[in-house]
Amino acid sequence: MGKATAQSFADEDGGIWRFPAEQALRLDSGAALSPLEIGYKTYGRLNAEKSNAILVCHALTGDQHLASTHPLTGKPGWWDRMVGPGKPLDPGRYFIVCTNVIGGCMGSTGPASIDPATGKTYALTFPVITIADMVRAQAMLMEAWGIETLFAVIGGSMGGMQAMQWAADYPEKLFSCVCIATAPRHSAQNIAFHEVGRQAIMADPDWRGGAYDAHGVRPEKGLAVARMAGHITYLSEAALQRKFGRELQRDGLSWGFDADFQVESYLRHQGAAFVDRFDANSYLYITRALDYFDLAGQFGGVLAHAFQKARQVRFCVLSFSSDWLYPTGESRDLVRALNAAGARASFVEIETDKGHDAFFLDEPQLDSTLRGFIGAAAHARGLK
Amino acid sequence: MGKATAQSFADEDGGIWRFPAEQALRLDSGAALSPLEIGYKTYGRLNAEKSNAILVCHALTGDQHLASTHPLTGKPGWWDRMVGPGKPLDPGRYFIVCTNVIGGCMGSTGPASIDPATGKTYALTFPVITIADMVRAQAMLMEAWGIETLFAVIGGSMGGMQAMQWAADYPEKLFSCVCIATAPRHSAQNIAFHEVGRQAIMADPDWRGGAYDAHGVRPEKGLAVARMAGHITYLSEAALQRKFGRELQRDGLSWGFDADFQVESYLRHQGAAFVDRFDANSYLYITRALDYFDLAGQFGGVLAHAFQKARQVRFCVLSFSSDWLYPTGESRDLVRALNAAGARASFVEIETDKGHDAFFLDEPQLDSTLRGFIGAAAHARGLK
Repeated sequence: MGKATAQSFADEDGGIWRFPAEQALRLDSGAALSPLEIGYKTYGRLNAEKSNAILVCHALTGDQHLASTHPLTGKPGWWDRMVGPGKPLDPGRYFIVCTNVIGGCMGSTGPASIDPATGKTYALTFPVITIADMVRAQAMLMEAWGIETLFAVIGGSMGGMQAMQWAADYPEKLFSCVCIATAPRHSAQNIAFHEVGRQAIMADPDWRGGAYDAHGVRPEKGLAVARMAGHITYLSEAALQRKFGRELQRDGLSWGFDADFQVESYLRHQGAAFVDRFDANSYLYITRALDYFDLAGQFGGVLAHAFQKARQVRFCVLSFSSDWLYPTGESRDLVRALNAAGARASFVEIETDKGHDAFFLDEPQLDSTLRGFIGAAAHARGLK
Repeated sequence: MGKATAQSFADEDGGIWRFPAEQALRLDSGAALSPLEIGYKTYGRLNAEKSNAILVCHALTGDQHLASTHPLTGKPGWWDRMVGPGKPLDPGRYFIVCTNVIGGCMGSTGPASIDPATGKTYALTFPVITIADMVRAQAMLMEAWGIETLFAVIGGSMGGMQAMQWAADYPEKLFSCVCIATAPRHSAQNIAFHEVGRQAIMADPDWRGGAYDAHGVRPEKGLAVARMAGHITYLSEAALQRKFGRELQRDGLSWGFDADFQVESYLRHQGAAFVDRFDANSYLYITRALDYFDLAGQFGGVLAHAFQKARQVRFCVLSFSSDWLYPTGESRDLVRALNAAGARASFVEIETDKGHDAFFLDEPQLDSTLRGFIGAAAHARGLK
């Protein structure tokens, strides 16, 4: 068991929640995961009615360190600007939870965990997981904490997929749902970029068929290349041009293969920093979960059917005009399905040149939209 | 010397043209390349006035096998649909030349060539080259063949950059110039994608610091990943969605890391096929030449200055609406500069969802535009 229980959260809390072995997590693949562990962080206090809980779902390479210093990088939490006193998600008012997804590498059960059946690292014997599996694990944790209804589920990118999946699978446990810069299914281009990243990892001889841990090595070069390829898709062409253009690292060209251009140096840094905090097999499993995501496919091919029991949930859908990873058109598909299902949905496309990553960046309209939506929902929910 | 001379071309000819050692190629880096060899193919006959020569410049991974069976792959030439009897570029009327760029791996001097100073493969001791260097080598060949004026230079993508560079550096040797799906400079996003490819190659332990040839190995995995990353940028999201969508390879998911989706299988095939015909170091050098390309930068930062001596050249600029590698806006920049320089330029944006690769594909408007432009230019040139 983790150190926290529903009754005893500190203003900021966190740890690893350990389920008893008999409480296995059923997976979409047919496999089961046990014992299940979930890395989590919480901010604020659960009120007596247990009605003020907000679950924030992280993106592909995120983790539970939402608004507090990351233990490996020493950097501020990934959504520090959104979570805190006076910010749109205020721990003085809400009980804010963020959990590491299963398959991850920051405390939740994943391919780097020990398989109790063998006493060794799972590596590639870890079962393939889905977005629905991630959500099922989160629901188990909420149940363990006695939280019957979430005031809100909020997520961007892969986090937005989890939010959608919550609405589809647990509509009765949800008051509101915010989906930011996301899509109800992974496109061919999305899959293609992930496949490049996976092939880069698997081409690294230090990957060792996934068993690098047993060999005391890490496929750092392959993982760095995967991160570089992914990172390009998080930024718009305009943002790259604005930030870097053709600016050089030094005066003049090197006439060689050093990083001449600032954009090269930036990408190399992104790759190098990533391998210090992320597990290569987790990258394989989580990208696979994203590729497998097709919410309509889970409901007979009709996206609106996913939301037929979610008519009472308040939805907020946000997209960024320059996001080419999950373009606005995919958010519109989601909104149309919500409308067709008779659910209430507000939709905002935010004009920005920052691309997909605008989610994490200084984007005042995102803050104000979220503040307005959450505030109105809190009023409707009767939260003080 | 090659087997052909200007006087003795067969209807279809080709080989390797060897310059005497004293005719070194001066390079922008300050280095010189000697002896210089150029792989070439020709189609049709040079007329008595030597006024009917068309130089077609190939793209990053192309070569001189424009309209005849590729010796390594056994596949038709890369622009077979454009070059041939009755086609827009008709060898019955024109003398059509295509040369392998320097730095390439199909006969022209490149990193896989033997360095006469050491008797060993150049590998990374090969000098970094530029688009202007490629063009200077082509100009040497035209001079060796006694062709004082090219009726046309035509190229797509990197080939279009060579065409622009011809107009900038040899305006008096050019009657017309066709730039397809290209840009006057490489953007930050373009550089970023190339850097991912280069890092993938250099991360492959079989790259051996570039000296793989001396070790009897080849960085095939890294090169395949580089090709996969590049290939995504050649297709539009719509084309990927139309061709593959989320279609599976088999009934049902594998719940593993096999190629579940057709788009994964397609990309893997693209990577695997590429390593059979391309040299990894050539990929490094040619992508570097592309990254270094900034035509305005060569002329004091003003693109129009590049074309101030090219007022008599007839330009045709074509772009594809769904090309996100070299978007239409970059062709418009080129056209604006041509207009500002007082050069005559026709410009067509072709509506298509095929992306950058539309250049190679069945795109009737491309054929008809090229046929019309070249036909009118031939009339103005007095060609029969």
